[in-house]
Amino acid sequence: MIIRKKILLGALVGILSGQTQAGSEIETLIRMLHDNGTVDDAQFERLMDEVRGGAKKIESNAKGMNAQKDKSTDVKLIINKGGIQVKTSDGEFDTKIGGRVQMDAAWHDEDGSEMGNGTEFRRARLYLQGKMFHDWGYKLQYDFTGTGRGGIRDAFLTYNGFDHIEFKAGNFKDPYMLQEQTSSKYITFTERALVDAFASGRHLGVMTSAKYKNWTAAVGLFGRGVNTASKSKDEGWGVAGRATYAPINEKTRVIHLGVAGDYRNTGDTESVRFKQQPETHISGVNIVDTGKIAGVDNYLHLGAELAFVEGPLSAQAEYVWTTIERNVEGDIDFNGWYVQTAYFLTGESRRYKKGKFSGVSPKSVVGRGGIGAWQLAARYSTIDLNDGNIHGGDAENMTIGLNWFPTSTLRFSGSYVKTFNINGGVHDNEEPGLFQIRGQWAF
Amino acid sequence: MIIRKKILLGALVGILSGQTQAGSEIETLIRMLHDNGTVDDAQFERLMDEVRGGAKKIESNAKGMNAQKDKSTDVKLIINKGGIQVKTSDGEFDTKIGGRVQMDAAWHDEDGSEMGNGTEFRRARLYLQGKMFHDWGYKLQYDFTGTGRGGIRDAFLTYNGFDHIEFKAGNFKDPYMLQEQTSSKYITFTERALVDAFASGRHLGVMTSAKYKNWTAAVGLFGRGVNTASKSKDEGWGVAGRATYAPINEKTRVIHLGVAGDYRNTGDTESVRFKQQPETHISGVNIVDTGKIAGVDNYLHLGAELAFVEGPLSAQAEYVWTTIERNVEGDIDFNGWYVQTAYFLTGESRRYKKGKFSGVSPKSVVGRGGIGAWQLAARYSTIDLNDGNIHGGDAENMTIGLNWFPTSTLRFSGSYVKTFNINGGVHDNEEPGLFQIRGQWAF
Amino acid sequence: MIIRKKILLGALVGILSGQTQAGSEIETLIRMLHDNGTVDDAQFERLMDEVRGGAKKIESNAKGMNAQKDKSTDVKLIINKGGIQVKTSDGEFDTKIGGRVQMDAAWHDEDGSEMGNGTEFRRARLYLQGKMFHDWGYKLQYDFTGTGRGGIRDAFLTYNGFDHIEFKAGNFKDPYMLQEQTSSKYITFTERALVDAFASGRHLGVMTSAKYKNWTAAVGLFGRGVNTASKSKDEGWGVAGRATYAPINEKTRVIHLGVAGDYRNTGDTESVRFKQQPETHISGVNIVDTGKIAGVDNYLHLGAELAFVEGPLSAQAEYVWTTIERNVEGDIDFNGWYVQTAYFLTGESRRYKKGKFSGVSPKSVVGRGGIGAWQLAARYSTIDLNDGNIHGGDAENMTIGLNWFPTSTLRFSGSYVKTFNINGGVHDNEEPGLFQIRGQWAF
Repeated sequence: MIIRKKILLGALVGILSGQTQAGSEIETLIRMLHDNGTVDDAQFERLMDEVRGGAKKIESNAKGMNAQKDKSTDVKLIINKGGIQVKTSDGEFDTKIGGRVQMDAAWHDEDGSEMGNGTEFRRARLYLQGKMFHDWGYKLQYDFTGTGRGGIRDAFLTYNGFDHIEFKAGNFKDPYMLQEQTSSKYITFTERALVDAFASGRHLGVMTSAKYKNWTAAVGLFGRGVNTASKSKDEGWGVAGRATYAPINEKTRVIHLGVAGDYRNTGDTESVRFKQQPETHISGVNIVDTGKIAGVDNYLHLGAELAFVEGPLSAQAEYVWTTIERNVEGDIDFNGWYVQTAYFLTGESRRYKKGKFSGVSPKSVVGRGGIGAWQLAARYSTIDLNDGNIHGGDAENMTIGLNWFPTSTLRFSGSYVKTFNINGGVHDNEEPGLFQIRGQWAF
Repeated sequence: MIIRKKILLGALVGILSGQTQAGSEIETLIRMLHDNGTVDDAQFERLMDEVRGGAKKIESNAKGMNAQKDKSTDVKLIINKGGIQVKTSDGEFDTKIGGRVQMDAAWHDEDGSEMGNGTEFRRARLYLQGKMFHDWGYKLQYDFTGTGRGGIRDAFLTYNGFDHIEFKAGNFKDPYMLQEQTSSKYITFTERALVDAFASGRHLGVMTSAKYKNWTAAVGLFGRGVNTASKSKDEGWGVAGRATYAPINEKTRVIHLGVAGDYRNTGDTESVRFKQQPETHISGVNIVDTGKIAGVDNYLHLGAELAFVEGPLSAQAEYVWTTIERNVEGDIDFNGWYVQTAYFLTGESRRYKKGKFSGVSPKSVVGRGGIGAWQLAARYSTIDLNDGNIHGGDAENMTIGLNWFPTSTLRFSGSYVKTFNINGGVHDNEEPGLFQIRGQWAF
Repeated sequence: MIIRKKILLGALVGILSGQTQAGSEIETLIRMLHDNGTVDDAQFERLMDEVRGGAKKIESNAKGMNAQKDKSTDVKLIINKGGIQVKTSDGEFDTKIGGRVQMDAAWHDEDGSEMGNGTEFRRARLYLQGKMFHDWGYKLQYDFTGTGRGGIRDAFLTYNGFDHIEFKAGNFKDPYMLQEQTSSKYITFTERALVDAFASGRHLGVMTSAKYKNWTAAVGLFGRGVNTASKSKDEGWGVAGRATYAPINEKTRVIHLGVAGDYRNTGDTESVRFKQQPETHISGVNIVDTGKIAGVDNYLHLGAELAFVEGPLSAQAEYVWTTIERNVEGDIDFNGWYVQTAYFLTGESRRYKKGKFSGVSPKSVVGRGGIGAWQLAARYSTIDLNDGNIHGGDAENMTIGLNWFPTSTLRFSGSYVKTFNINGGVHDNEEPGLFQIRGQWAF
């Protein structure tokens, strides 16, 4: 009787898990009828063979058919974080619909230049992501805060026919900088550190990457971005690569080391510009700004990354060095770095996966009687855009932030950024401060 | 035997309803085996306990697990009006994909100013709406007739952890004006009445609302709209509130009373403009238009609403009064009102729910042998934008309309609008008329 | 026992097919219990009646209910090509989410005019397509490479209450030209032939079409396109019709004949312009271009189509003749034609369906141990935009192409286009060549 109880419970687990494991339902009943003597031993054996063998046979028939025709059978439906996911249980197809919205408000302590207080949708994205015929994957993500092609974010095709190795073609981020690789959903503060001025963003390109538990490597060749308008000029191109090593990679303990390089040839545009707001997107004021640097043949970013997680504590630092090769005038170099730390008051750990950070699952959830996850964070950040005849300015800032994750899908963040030591550029000697909040949901 | 029959039928209802009520399926079988004597009384009791207790236990296990991990179990799939809905049967998650398309054509009897005959997509929207972890909700709606951020419509997060009380943050309509609160899918004519010139539309803000069967109340604090470009200026802000009371609120009998106020401080823009086309969106001609009123510190709209439903008959009226406070010149006041009535020839009633009107479900459906719902409607509408040194014009119009709802998802509308008594402004004494049709589907 | 085995297998087929055919599951068990003598003959008869009669009764109850309320029961979920499809098993509702992405890169052999090498997203579309209340259908498709209304592609409502006859209203392609009717997903080369300069594209309009196995006919009345900005001018209008006949229409053998005409009245714009890039979308250079032809009252395109499929071989040719009626100056005529052929090295046949070509299902799939479908193709193409006082130029080109379809959802194409004999226009005597590649996924 105890055995039967376990079997029935086992079947119920299957049934209640919402997956159509009809096989085990039938099996349980056959077992029960057998236990009761309604089904004799010989019948029981035959029936079980039929249930299992039949399943196998039908599946392989289905396979045979599917080689000719698209598959429409044996599908699971998952509601996950408020989005929708559908997948076939044979792992051949998988489609997800999801997105993110970030709503920001900011108030500025002006100090010289006028900055605009205000509210905005920072990001409002939807994506479809899928797996097709086992080996192929795609993603199409659009940000409704952009216009036309300018709103296309991740839009790529992958081939995953080899273990650990992925080939990717389309529009995606150059493999460069830890804070860039980490999704905007999962960065510690509302905005990335000042050195994000050197981020290349996304380009149309091809990339090969290897992802193992303790290390990753990626190298890619890139064309232009999706929104480059000048169609009758040759576009620039770039090569970027990144390697990471995690000597420790456990659930609550991580050490991450990384190096990356990103080279861009400017093509016919022969120019580049680096600029940055004071770690906000609302002020409308670039506190450092090189303006358009002309006569540029190419530029190269090099970066070094360091990060760790130890229980609720985590820290992350990056140094970026950029050199610009000009046709007539001499080369110029810029650089910047930041170091940040964060602590979960509620005991969660920052999640790390394959060379970047991921989201948090609160230990207790608001809506199920919990209080969510609470995190304190601080950052020091600096950038230097002064070199040669370019006076873009250098700047430093300190940020303190508080994050509340009521559920794994929600985030409310507040932070105060104080900028100081602006040296050179239009905003020389200004010391603006700002307070900003964000409401975010991702589904 | 009769009892068993009922039980089996009951189970079949559950099964055929497409919901995976696997529990009751098993129960039915256990009952049947018990009735047949295959399962004895003691076994029966134990089995039923297991089925039910097991279900409870597994569910709570699942809950425990889900506090750590996102839920992916026990999901229902609903195709509803042509959209897609997925929800978990425990009420924790619910995601809907839907939208609306409105295709218009208009022909103008010009009388003075040239108006453009033509066709257009008035609205083409998709939305994702969801419930997450029981207490949280979101909506992200985009209108493809807009550009970039300008296409973002409803985009908000709600907290619904308290009965009847909702907290909302994001982009949504100020709580003001019955015809504004009623979705464009469900308004009686193709376009809202002339006083829609005073509608505030959507802003980024926060709102608290209470919704009971017989009354609703809402108050919100708002920043700018999603598409305001001037980022380095302080934005204006606003406060709006609305209260409604329905002394009678039955399925086919409703009396609705409402009052609302909407205050906007103009911030650094220090200006406002009110204008209106002759209840069309295609003519390209504003028959009343204040132009840009400068030196404005703030303005306040006040509105009074009255509506009723009595079987197939319904009526609705609103009065709006607007006062503008200027820095140098004196204050100015505008106003407008309308009264409209509609009658379902096919006997349906206009649906009312929590302070606004909703869609119609035809008694008979085209596609299932029916003729759909047919509705006749008439409206008188006026607006006065003349005051002080502002000569925006005042105007009146009469509209008659015919709506056909072949199904609950479809609507075809035709209406004729005659404008008269334009007094002041650029279109003084013109009397344009127009005929317009709309095809609409909402899914 | 053999019979029971078959029944059980039959039930398992139903269960494993992922469709909730709970009825047959219950039936199988009743049969099994009957076979075992647990259920006697009389009970068996009654139970089966209940199962089947009950099913019928409940279904009709459901129907009755659904006349009042939208249906939310008995739904199938299909993951198909990487998109998502949901439909009710009674055929009343059906909703699909899908899309396509095309990523291009091109390199030009310039010969005179500078052409831009580069990469771009050619198309990035999502669509929702649905069936509502059996007789009604809709599609809403958006191309994220467009801006605002300019990104709206197919957006229409259909009535399908009559067999073979469809009524359509909304934004869709004029019924004209075989290569236009064939989706950009399924055309043989990366871009359509030069005569695509005469394609009308999509307009807001209404159309009636008949589709039979061996012939199709369609005629429509059209207003403007979705993106026409000048709202206070009367828009032009058009009438278009197309008839096709397929004396042979088998799976691997097709003969297709077609004729079509497309008339456009220019309305208040009184102008038209025809131009074409050298069968690419990246060069930014129109090798033939009439410029804006003024004083145009109307123009008419006439086209003749011919195509065949014979096993892996297929061919297609079209001739287009265009005449422009001008108010003051005399009429002018343009024309163009192309002929192309393609051969599947892997033995597939080009699919033909109701007057247009469709996609290919590779005989073997990459990801299931296969190599996909491989196709070679060649095209000769010409256009003449010289007539009267208009010197737009005439041009010829030859293209060879290779297509690889690793799966039914994927396509990689490479082609080389050599343009020659440009005669007249700005690019007189130039002979540019270009190599372009495309990666495409459709889901």
